[in-house]
Amino acid sequence: MDTTGENALVVLSGGQDSTTCLYWAIDRFGRDNVVTLTFDYGQRHRIELECATRIAEHAGVRNVRLPINTFSALGGDALTDSGIPVELGSSTSGELPNTFVPGRNLVFLTFSAAFAYQRGITQIVTGVAQTDYSGYPDCREETIRALQETLRLGMECDVVIHTPLMHLSKRQTVELARDLGGLPAMALTHTCYNGQRPPCGRCPACELRAKGFLEAGIDDPLLQSK
Amino acid sequence: MDTTGENALVVLSGGQDSTTCLYWAIDRFGRDNVVTLTFDYGQRHRIELECATRIAEHAGVRNVRLPINTFSALGGDALTDSGIPVELGSSTSGELPNTFVPGRNLVFLTFSAAFAYQRGITQIVTGVAQTDYSGYPDCREETIRALQETLRLGMECDVVIHTPLMHLSKRQTVELARDLGGLPAMALTHTCYNGQRPPCGRCPACELRAKGFLEAGIDDPLLQSK
Repeated sequence: MDTTGENALVVLSGGQDSTTCLYWAIDRFGRDNVVTLTFDYGQRHRIELECATRIAEHAGVRNVRLPINTFSALGGDALTDSGIPVELGSSTSGELPNTFVPGRNLVFLTFSAAFAYQRGITQIVTGVAQTDYSGYPDCREETIRALQETLRLGMECDVVIHTPLMHLSKRQTVELARDLGGLPAMALTHTCYNGQRPPCGRCPACELRAKGFLEAGIDDPLLQSK
Repeated sequence: MDTTGENALVVLSGGQDSTTCLYWAIDRFGRDNVVTLTFDYGQRHRIELECATRIAEHAGVRNVRLPINTFSALGGDALTDSGIPVELGSSTSGELPNTFVPGRNLVFLTFSAAFAYQRGITQIVTGVAQTDYSGYPDCREETIRALQETLRLGMECDVVIHTPLMHLSKRQTVELARDLGGLPAMALTHTCYNGQRPPCGRCPACELRAKGFLEAGIDDPLLQSK
């Protein structure tokens, strides 16, 4: 595949938000100019990786998978250590949920910038959002702006980190995906914290997703495909 | 080993600069409060890892080794890809030397901050320096300050990144090591780009090291131990 035209990179986790960002990037930069990057960081639900591959195929863009074995070695968090149960509902307690991997998004975006730097790509798109606040300080706009500045200084480049979902509610994200023709791809995404497919419907991630589709008045294609 | 007293982390590569930083940290924070972190990131010269272990043992502090398999996967740089020769003398050409791994120090420090966060450690010490300018923009003070701000925002913590060598010449770094009682440990460090022990004496790294010891009027313990 000729990759010389690529000028935009989407961090694709295989979830609803990053998939919406992929369609945003295709709309803004053109399908032929978009590459997706997926991190294999020891996430509990390996299905996310397969979802990312299928979503990229469906969208007609290239998907590159990069390994990160460091978070598992750091240990001590629920997303990479299968011995620690996910705390249900912890996001409402005011404490950081135990799915928090310190600096996870900072690492993802720094490696994304390194990958982009090597290829002359300057546009990076990530699905972080500070609405529907998840308790992750590395998803906030202020943090992303500081990181962009750090990456520009540290790599001597003009990288731009786009966060099209930053101030959208889940309802608005669903509506954006619809407007960009991204709804069919939602059937390929993974959201459930319990790793179930079809999704469990009871974990905080499933509930948040269901709320977004309900408020948008749109049937979730993932549930239609059961 | 009781690690509850640790409040300072030194990024220890096994080289001259980070070893000097280790003695700086021991002097400033106390031996019992210092832990060292060494990254196994696929560096060409595996001897650096063994050096770091021996230096920490010699200094009487704990050494933790963390793997990062991502740089090798990113490829395309001389330090992780054994098929690419190191460009000798490239640091004088004004171009970035081909030992440049984009964002390497940003990644090291972000993982260091994650490790520190999990243990309530707030003081991080790194041997980066913008004197004897190496061509690495992620070693500059401006970059480190921006990164510190990013880490504080992204992890909601009060992490401080100390760079005691930032404005020191190699001569001054040698003198600092001497003043802190760190000279004997210099016999255990690794500098040579060609991975030789005893060092080749001809590569840019060996030449820079020799210049520092010469100007300080101190015999390099590494050469004495031949």
